[in-house]
Amino acid sequence: MTVNATSSTAVSASTPNSPGDTLLANAIRVLSFDAVEAAKSGHPGMPMGMADIGVALWTRHYRHNPANPAWANRDRFIVSNGHGSMLHYSLLHFAGYDLPMEEIRNFRKLHSRTAGHPEVGITPGVETTTGPLGQGIANGVGMALAEWLLASEFNKPGLPIVDHRTYVFLGDGCLMEGVSHEACSLAGTLRLNKLVALYDDNNISIDGKVEGWFTEDIPKRFESYGWNVIGGVDGHSVEAVSAAIEAAKTSDRPTLICCKTVIGKGSPNRAGTAKAHGEALGAEEIKLTREALGWAHAPFEIPAEVYAGFDARARGGAQEADWNALFAQYEAQFPTEAAEFKRRIAKGLPANWSETVAAYLAACEDKKETIATRKASQNAIEAYAKVLPEFLGGSADLTGSNLTNWSTSKPVRVGQPGQHINYGVREFGMSAVMNGIALHGGYLPFGATFLTFSDYSRNAIRMAALMKQRSIFVFTHDSIGLGEDGPTHQSIEHVSSLRLIPGLDVWRPADTTESAVAWAVAVEQVNRPSTLLFSRQNLPFLSKPAGAIEGIRRGGYVLSDAPGAKAVILATGSEVGLALDAQKLLAEQGVPTRVVSIPSTSVFDRQPADYKAAVLGSGLPRVAVEAGVTDFWWKYRVEAVVGIDTFGESAPAGVLFKHFGFTPENVANTVKAAIA
Amino acid sequence: MTVNATSSTAVSASTPNSPGDTLLANAIRVLSFDAVEAAKSGHPGMPMGMADIGVALWTRHYRHNPANPAWANRDRFIVSNGHGSMLHYSLLHFAGYDLPMEEIRNFRKLHSRTAGHPEVGITPGVETTTGPLGQGIANGVGMALAEWLLASEFNKPGLPIVDHRTYVFLGDGCLMEGVSHEACSLAGTLRLNKLVALYDDNNISIDGKVEGWFTEDIPKRFESYGWNVIGGVDGHSVEAVSAAIEAAKTSDRPTLICCKTVIGKGSPNRAGTAKAHGEALGAEEIKLTREALGWAHAPFEIPAEVYAGFDARARGGAQEADWNALFAQYEAQFPTEAAEFKRRIAKGLPANWSETVAAYLAACEDKKETIATRKASQNAIEAYAKVLPEFLGGSADLTGSNLTNWSTSKPVRVGQPGQHINYGVREFGMSAVMNGIALHGGYLPFGATFLTFSDYSRNAIRMAALMKQRSIFVFTHDSIGLGEDGPTHQSIEHVSSLRLIPGLDVWRPADTTESAVAWAVAVEQVNRPSTLLFSRQNLPFLSKPAGAIEGIRRGGYVLSDAPGAKAVILATGSEVGLALDAQKLLAEQGVPTRVVSIPSTSVFDRQPADYKAAVLGSGLPRVAVEAGVTDFWWKYRVEAVVGIDTFGESAPAGVLFKHFGFTPENVANTVKAAIA
Repeated sequence: MTVNATSSTAVSASTPNSPGDTLLANAIRVLSFDAVEAAKSGHPGMPMGMADIGVALWTRHYRHNPANPAWANRDRFIVSNGHGSMLHYSLLHFAGYDLPMEEIRNFRKLHSRTAGHPEVGITPGVETTTGPLGQGIANGVGMALAEWLLASEFNKPGLPIVDHRTYVFLGDGCLMEGVSHEACSLAGTLRLNKLVALYDDNNISIDGKVEGWFTEDIPKRFESYGWNVIGGVDGHSVEAVSAAIEAAKTSDRPTLICCKTVIGKGSPNRAGTAKAHGEALGAEEIKLTREALGWAHAPFEIPAEVYAGFDARARGGAQEADWNALFAQYEAQFPTEAAEFKRRIAKGLPANWSETVAAYLAACEDKKETIATRKASQNAIEAYAKVLPEFLGGSADLTGSNLTNWSTSKPVRVGQPGQHINYGVREFGMSAVMNGIALHGGYLPFGATFLTFSDYSRNAIRMAALMKQRSIFVFTHDSIGLGEDGPTHQSIEHVSSLRLIPGLDVWRPADTTESAVAWAVAVEQVNRPSTLLFSRQNLPFLSKPAGAIEGIRRGGYVLSDAPGAKAVILATGSEVGLALDAQKLLAEQGVPTRVVSIPSTSVFDRQPADYKAAVLGSGLPRVAVEAGVTDFWWKYRVEAVVGIDTFGESAPAGVLFKHFGFTPENVANTVKAAIA
Repeated sequence: MTVNATSSTAVSASTPNSPGDTLLANAIRVLSFDAVEAAKSGHPGMPMGMADIGVALWTRHYRHNPANPAWANRDRFIVSNGHGSMLHYSLLHFAGYDLPMEEIRNFRKLHSRTAGHPEVGITPGVETTTGPLGQGIANGVGMALAEWLLASEFNKPGLPIVDHRTYVFLGDGCLMEGVSHEACSLAGTLRLNKLVALYDDNNISIDGKVEGWFTEDIPKRFESYGWNVIGGVDGHSVEAVSAAIEAAKTSDRPTLICCKTVIGKGSPNRAGTAKAHGEALGAEEIKLTREALGWAHAPFEIPAEVYAGFDARARGGAQEADWNALFAQYEAQFPTEAAEFKRRIAKGLPANWSETVAAYLAACEDKKETIATRKASQNAIEAYAKVLPEFLGGSADLTGSNLTNWSTSKPVRVGQPGQHINYGVREFGMSAVMNGIALHGGYLPFGATFLTFSDYSRNAIRMAALMKQRSIFVFTHDSIGLGEDGPTHQSIEHVSSLRLIPGLDVWRPADTTESAVAWAVAVEQVNRPSTLLFSRQNLPFLSKPAGAIEGIRRGGYVLSDAPGAKAVILATGSEVGLALDAQKLLAEQGVPTRVVSIPSTSVFDRQPADYKAAVLGSGLPRVAVEAGVTDFWWKYRVEAVVGIDTFGESAPAGVLFKHFGFTPENVANTVKAAIA
């Protein structure tokens, strides 16, 4: 084994695998290609190439209990190159998880627990959903970060109740993706030394040999990030890989172990080729591969020695039992902290949550402040942080603009825990790291950028929704109201386009109270991500009718009604005040109207039909007003939409609102045309 | 000056600026902070910090002609840290571009030519729109790539009609962004040695000193990409920077010049602080800064020596005249190539374009193939590539799945030009590089990935639309029809969410002919990007009525009508065949219906009202069918949408379509309910 000269750790020389390890690794290979063959779809190359690495980690290092995949102090394991799902499923099956052979046979079939790519919540032992490359390692950075912070917060001398590692498998694809750059750079800066990444360096990606498009010196790149790099490890030597992992444990930096492997290893004709990557080997090549591996067993028949070799139930049960004993000691000495730890891991709300929210909302209604909703957001954070120590805020280098820090939050720095993360200009990395934090448990992550740059992190927002994780994405400067920075920075399509992501709540509050309710509901939705959209500019406080707070919680409500209303104006965020101005103007012209504020269409859409009908009115023409694209609003059977279907312009906000027709006069005229 | 040990080039030692250079640099500083002050908004820090670098590049190296910003062989210059727009505007103004002082005074005002961030098409001399960090350098990679390929294609011995450099200014923000990683890694692999990036290494980003979140060893990182790195340059020494640029010109690699600078240099109280970055200095600090710089002139009054020092009109005019003479020689010796070069630069279509398209569409109608539309796309590429040598295809490591290569395309490799780029697993980088290629001119870039991963590149797609560039984004595997790879890979919201981007055409064709029309229209839209969405699975060839091809060109048309139709079924892509099956079933049940295929809603929406009304029918209930989110379709006043508002599942495509209700029976029942 060659060892990289800089900041790396020496490990033992490569040794050939023992017969026992060979058997275990080959079992992964065979089960993987048999399952892919049965599904007529899938990726045999990675499981066959990383089989020995899997054996090294899972039989010698990985601390977990198959009987309890939710054990709080388990090591985390991520297959960032998620197309290699059969590697993970094989390991889970062999190690004793509740993933019987029937599920392996049903690989990639509807409602099986063995989806095409690993999905958290579907398969026991899967820690995050992977497949979109690069995000798994970023999730791993989030988990390692959460582990460090949680340990700093809860551990007591001699009572390390939080003390585990995060292991990540990744491939060339993950390393090409920009999100791996963002997350790994941050991990290096923060020296997350309990993160161990194992790189499947097989020189192959889907298009063929990577030398044509990917020639980075990976060890050098990761050294530039401040990682501990263990280079040149023989990825087919279980002992060499194991020694590298052992060495990684002593580093004060995150470690990248570069494992030289052969994709599809074992397949006489496909090993080392792109063809091994993503298609079934086929009957003939499977026959040849079985011969080459000396594997005499039929498909889905696994010798008992394999199960014996992988079985982690006894070891894992003992590890968890030890931890339970430790935790019992902790609980005896620190009952308050122990209870709090349990609450945090269970995502429970604090006992005084409802009172805190109610009191704060009452205060908002009382103060009637006209401020930017981004400032209203910060005030809500300030209020709720008093009872939510799990708040872990952050910003992609726009802290002073996004206002996601608060008076008692300390910035997270290397060796110095805190409650607010300066993620740097890394929107995608931030969002994927947040998902990792949420998946780890113990914290409620939120992170921010300008709404337009939600584009950069869009797939991580989608992944939060798919995984049902409580990541809260704060997006400020939510319209042309951003002003002079111009069209590159002004959101036009973003509010609506976020609304199209299934399972995601999108809030665009209109004033201080709506902002505070949005935050409260986002916190309470423990199995759903939320995006909170806030204005750069001041928005007037809205006088509300009785019951309005419940209406905000329902996503939409009648803000201002008029006897004999002839039309309904629907609006969100900064346009609600405009709608009220138009209502007033129309009233002066003898046209009574109703104004409905819809801070969250997704929440509103989940309400009972009769509630929605009562709010929207029936038989009355409707007009929607929002400083964004118009297409979305037709679902509410409107007659017209006052919106923007072009890009913005660079000018002061007030000039722009006028330029784009966001005036009481234009809204009033549109309403009158809709009535006519 | 320290010089990095590896793969770097020695340059002369740092020397203090001459009085003349000091004057020029200070003129940039003063004009920038005065313009920001007048706008009460903007970013003085970067222009003040990079002023000397601007002087070095613009007075000693940058080859351009202010009188003709469209000169084909000009050097390209990009401010990737686009918030420093006033640096660029100052330079353009001083050098003699058509950007009078009146425009500088109107910085950030509506309809000025001095937008908050540089915008191509608005300001003469601006080569790309920047502001969303990291994309400018990626655009620069695309320009350098286009320059190399175009030179390889057109230059003749002694007649280098394409021979220029691409210079990029960038900052810490750009380097934190993942897209810089993706694009710069590719640039290193391809050894784009005419790319020179100048890094504003000032240790500051918006949140403060970057040491808390950004501690990369940048020279080492870029060496890992295979770049020539010139480290430790004094960014306030014009001569040192100039020498580094001179050294860069001799490298066989792209060059990164790391310039140590002080943000806001010149401002006594803000230099070196984050406060200098993004807010006006204020009257008091401006006074102190003027004193510190020894600048006696009033705001917007610039001494003649400054204009004299920067004036590039004579030099640039002579450079272009030399090139014109060279081109005349070229034209005399190679008239065909010269004409073709001019056509390519002007984005003209070849003379036989219409005939080629018509003949190919006739062949599609004749062959009646039932194939996947991704294959139909490849066939169209094959047909059109015969007359479009400007086709420059590519894929983010899914070439065999996206099918964006063709029989005569050669892969682009280091030192080996071609027509198809293996971008690696770098969707965002690919898309931003494509935009750079389009901006450079000479090529029509297209690049591909799975539709779901359009998320990764979303902001580059937006930027193509904002910049009105003909980048063609090919997205295959466009629905649950992708099958077993599961919900991480299945598009649900993407078709509709792309439709929300202003100025972007989205095509989702239903068969071979529609696919070929989509390609043709995308090629013809020279000032607009298009996204072409194709199926993984086979789609049946559709028998069409007379005039259908014109109807496809219009984005939507009556595919199949029935006398006395009682409802209209709208469908796109893979659901058009389903709509026809439902129509048949309904006919058997005595319910005549019309089926409308809408391959492009954006194109359809641009048609005259009477055409749209005729296609959609009036007074008839409408039902839309699309394997994606339903919200979008209500704008067509439908009664119901057969769609999917949850994530997909991992299973074979046929199973999934049934599972999610995409059956003739369900569509027919929905239509009957809509009629009732």
